[in-house]
Amino acid sequence: MTGSLVIAGLGPGNDALVTPEVTVALARATDIVGYIPYVARIPARPGLTLHPTDNRVELDRSRHALEMASTGRHVVVVSSGDPGVFAMAAAVFEAVEAGPNEWRALDIRVLPGITAMLAAAARAGAPLGHDFCTINLSDNLKPWAVIENRLRLAVQADFAMAFYNPRSKSRPEGFVRTLEVLKEACADNRPVIFARNVSRPDETINVVPLQDTQADMADMRTVVILGSSQTRIIETGAAPIVYTPRFSS
Amino acid sequence: MTGSLVIAGLGPGNDALVTPEVTVALARATDIVGYIPYVARIPARPGLTLHPTDNRVELDRSRHALEMASTGRHVVVVSSGDPGVFAMAAAVFEAVEAGPNEWRALDIRVLPGITAMLAAAARAGAPLGHDFCTINLSDNLKPWAVIENRLRLAVQADFAMAFYNPRSKSRPEGFVRTLEVLKEACADNRPVIFARNVSRPDETINVVPLQDTQADMADMRTVVILGSSQTRIIETGAAPIVYTPRFSS
Repeated sequence: MTGSLVIAGLGPGNDALVTPEVTVALARATDIVGYIPYVARIPARPGLTLHPTDNRVELDRSRHALEMASTGRHVVVVSSGDPGVFAMAAAVFEAVEAGPNEWRALDIRVLPGITAMLAAAARAGAPLGHDFCTINLSDNLKPWAVIENRLRLAVQADFAMAFYNPRSKSRPEGFVRTLEVLKEACADNRPVIFARNVSRPDETINVVPLQDTQADMADMRTVVILGSSQTRIIETGAAPIVYTPRFSS
Repeated sequence: MTGSLVIAGLGPGNDALVTPEVTVALARATDIVGYIPYVARIPARPGLTLHPTDNRVELDRSRHALEMASTGRHVVVVSSGDPGVFAMAAAVFEAVEAGPNEWRALDIRVLPGITAMLAAAARAGAPLGHDFCTINLSDNLKPWAVIENRLRLAVQADFAMAFYNPRSKSRPEGFVRTLEVLKEACADNRPVIFARNVSRPDETINVVPLQDTQADMADMRTVVILGSSQTRIIETGAAPIVYTPRFSS
């Protein structure tokens, strides 16, 4: 009996952003593994077992999924957004690398999804229309010195920037310091987009000049995008359009 | 009569990666505008006019789409991948900014898609599982000095990197120089992924140590991903898994 493990991206929240490939994988699964609110998106059906788990147990969850796949189950690990962008794919491969040799022979596939920064960018215009970088500000992943160095180099390189997990409850000062570094390093007053709950009914998109930003404009459900020095705003009468031109000099 | 303009991402090529949101927009369109091979993916039907155009006419194409929308048509501009990542969204907004005021009042929406680097990353494992940057190497967008500076800063920041449009016919030496800079700046021999025609029947994924890379391993249908200093390879007996852990020290 040959099992399988699929790591599937559910996109930012709206079912209209789930790819058909993921929908097919969910329909074939015997087991769904993931963080509680993502598993809650999957309808129950006969033959399907749901395994919702809490946040911050990504490695345990990964091992559980790998164990089930190795006994012949067809397991789907669900991730929000894209599983390869600050989500479950890296956690599963960390577990594979540290685990028993037979896990390396498993049929493991990653199915991409719409990651939050691209859904947010689409709502605001095209702020990531030229070179950009993507930084996870989550508190427990790396020392602050690494983040600060990366921010300063990214400003020098004139990337637009997307920030995931800007504000955590346990260390809210990280985003305060991030904004301080950016205000100091960016001479100009470029636009910052705060996109919360993108594609959900309670979505909000706010465009704020960098110098007017405050850390409490973001929480853990917000993705934040900072324009490059080239990013432009088109006033429309309704929400402004923020875009970065394709060319730079 | 109120028209509309949708800029829709078709993903990297396989219809299983087109979101339902995009499928609905295509079904409602009166006109489809885009580069010839992307428009060729849309089936003809009564009431739908296809407007395929050649490459390198993005601004003309955008103005044409805006003109049609302003006369009440429901126009979809199709893009490969995600329209906001080195694709048609920025071109349309450039045309809006330079165009007549009434274009700013149009109903314009961007629908995100699976961009090539995320489809490629999913095939290889999770090489973009931690902070990364995305750089367009297309020859005509910016001076080489801008690209070289950005590459060196991105290495210093220890980003994984995704490169779009690595090789153009008119200036193939750009990617030769890119690889020279990266080989010199990265002390270690990190993995490079050459992903060509991702999600299509003739897809190829090759993982090559940086020092062994050659420019002719890429063409304009290839997206190239370079690992960070933290990126790891899991040997499996079949294709290796390339992933970047979530944590860094």
